[in-house]
Amino acid sequence: MNKGITKTTLKLPFVTEGGARFEQPEVAYKTWGQLNEARDNVILICHALTGHAAADEWFAGIFGDDNIADPSKHFIICINVPGSCYGSLGPWSLNPKTGEPYRADFPEITIRDMVRFQQLLLDQLEIQGIELVIGGSMGGMQALEFTVMDRRIKTATLIAMGKAHSPWAIGISEAQRAAIRGDSKWRNGFYEKDSGPVEGIAAARMMAMITYRTPSDYNRKFGRKLQNEDGQFQVESYLNYQGDKLAKRFDALSYILLSRAMDRHDISRGRTNAEELLNRVEIPVQVIGIDSDHLYPPSEQVELASLFPNGRYHEISSDYGHDAFLIEFKQLQSIVKPFTEIFQILTY
Amino acid sequence: MNKGITKTTLKLPFVTEGGARFEQPEVAYKTWGQLNEARDNVILICHALTGHAAADEWFAGIFGDDNIADPSKHFIICINVPGSCYGSLGPWSLNPKTGEPYRADFPEITIRDMVRFQQLLLDQLEIQGIELVIGGSMGGMQALEFTVMDRRIKTATLIAMGKAHSPWAIGISEAQRAAIRGDSKWRNGFYEKDSGPVEGIAAARMMAMITYRTPSDYNRKFGRKLQNEDGQFQVESYLNYQGDKLAKRFDALSYILLSRAMDRHDISRGRTNAEELLNRVEIPVQVIGIDSDHLYPPSEQVELASLFPNGRYHEISSDYGHDAFLIEFKQLQSIVKPFTEIFQILTY
Repeated sequence: MNKGITKTTLKLPFVTEGGARFEQPEVAYKTWGQLNEARDNVILICHALTGHAAADEWFAGIFGDDNIADPSKHFIICINVPGSCYGSLGPWSLNPKTGEPYRADFPEITIRDMVRFQQLLLDQLEIQGIELVIGGSMGGMQALEFTVMDRRIKTATLIAMGKAHSPWAIGISEAQRAAIRGDSKWRNGFYEKDSGPVEGIAAARMMAMITYRTPSDYNRKFGRKLQNEDGQFQVESYLNYQGDKLAKRFDALSYILLSRAMDRHDISRGRTNAEELLNRVEIPVQVIGIDSDHLYPPSEQVELASLFPNGRYHEISSDYGHDAFLIEFKQLQSIVKPFTEIFQILTY
Repeated sequence: MNKGITKTTLKLPFVTEGGARFEQPEVAYKTWGQLNEARDNVILICHALTGHAAADEWFAGIFGDDNIADPSKHFIICINVPGSCYGSLGPWSLNPKTGEPYRADFPEITIRDMVRFQQLLLDQLEIQGIELVIGGSMGGMQALEFTVMDRRIKTATLIAMGKAHSPWAIGISEAQRAAIRGDSKWRNGFYEKDSGPVEGIAAARMMAMITYRTPSDYNRKFGRKLQNEDGQFQVESYLNYQGDKLAKRFDALSYILLSRAMDRHDISRGRTNAEELLNRVEIPVQVIGIDSDHLYPPSEQVELASLFPNGRYHEISSDYGHDAFLIEFKQLQSIVKPFTEIFQILTY
């Protein structure tokens, strides 16, 4: 995951919405292609909950010649969000006051904090314009906040999320956090890095994986086939494998911190109502739903699209549920490519 | 929950499908009304995963004068299933070999074992005919097996389940079990009764509660309202309360045992295929789905109904999801009452 990742420190301090201040925080990011002279041929990719800056790994299908993100034309950048465990400032960064990692003392992070943090790097790189900001799930929430918070954004593609996190999605998050807290190795978030609540986070991931897919996908993929003679079903083996896999690559403190940020996502919080707020955002915005997504159902994307004066709703037809935005790349291309191309004709 | 519960021992041994033998096992059950002379005015109610014999508490809306279960006409009985923690034989029963509770040494229980166990009591009570067997979710699975395994059954109402547990539902169960196993107090199922994995089972219940309801129900009930000034959402507070509540009343060993029994539910297992098997069941069977149930989607009930020569599908329209069978009693009455009345005209 570290291949091609750049690590640097931000020159300006990063101050969270809650008032926590970090001097020279670390930031991890990855770029593809070259900045043009105007420094405005930028495509900004925002990653989801357990994602990271190496977008070519988890969003491979949007990269390539003549694709949405074409390194021969665009300067593509993906920045690891603060609070994550993939190289940017987070719970395992050292607290200068103690010389120890912050762990559970790391402050609350919001989606807006993630945007501000990324803006500091974009400023430092002297980016002048962003042709497209694109993201799904937590990445879509950041992209949505970018449309409000950053005038450099010229178009946006928001996938599989809504104007605010629904009580349904919050409930699902909280059940997952309960599984992490229920693992005694959680120790209120003050565990040692090599002895964290791996079983709790694995159980959380298993739950999450289910909400990312659909009954018909599971029927096709697993049916009631047994994995072994002990009577374990393939679907059980698969989910346990997925749980263990995430436990090895992701940190429980980050999981709790970032899932809370998603729960607090509400574009209207502390502002005017969403209708008035987004009515001011005049750039072309496409909002993409997935017909089988029951975590962020299409009704949320339809509503979100309707709030932008230049918003348009598109739907991916898929059996994969929420995860479809990381799978159905052909459909994603056929939706996003014409959108960005029209935009390029209009502005160049 | 113990009000009106009868506890007795079965005279004949109970032998599980796996070959475990229990002499004089305990059985807890509850009855309402009087047996007629023919001993065939029986309504058998089968309870779900965390249910118990006091069906008038969790299935109150089907009881009463002129209702589905009318104690002035029927002898109504509900029997706690083996493996549960509400009075029948289960993991906390004493193992005569050790004088200690079985705990995790308690053997695997299947839905068919639950039926056989109940048959032993029905035999002991000299029941000659069962007008109606009715159950939802795990109760429906038992009712389905009863239609195949017991010729005393004259009609059956099967609610919100299918001919076999789907990989989707199995996955959801396994994620819940992972949360229990992830609580170090689980101790591989050899915990003390007063120091069990309460956090694990609470997390499992929180997950389960979500799958029993729907996004629109949560939108209406909670929205994004906060519970307190710490920023906790109402939905989080509600789910934590529900998790803690179950942890106080239900046992983790039973939860794992019974959820596994549900996972292994497959009417065709070790028999002929479901089509041939259920084609032999000539009694009137109604199968009821809930339009918003995404744990056991209506397609499963439509299919199940089609497999009975006298099967009929009915649908409850509700915003409540799977839980609707414990809530939408008016609709349930209007579906089941005419069905049982026609049956009574035909046979008396």
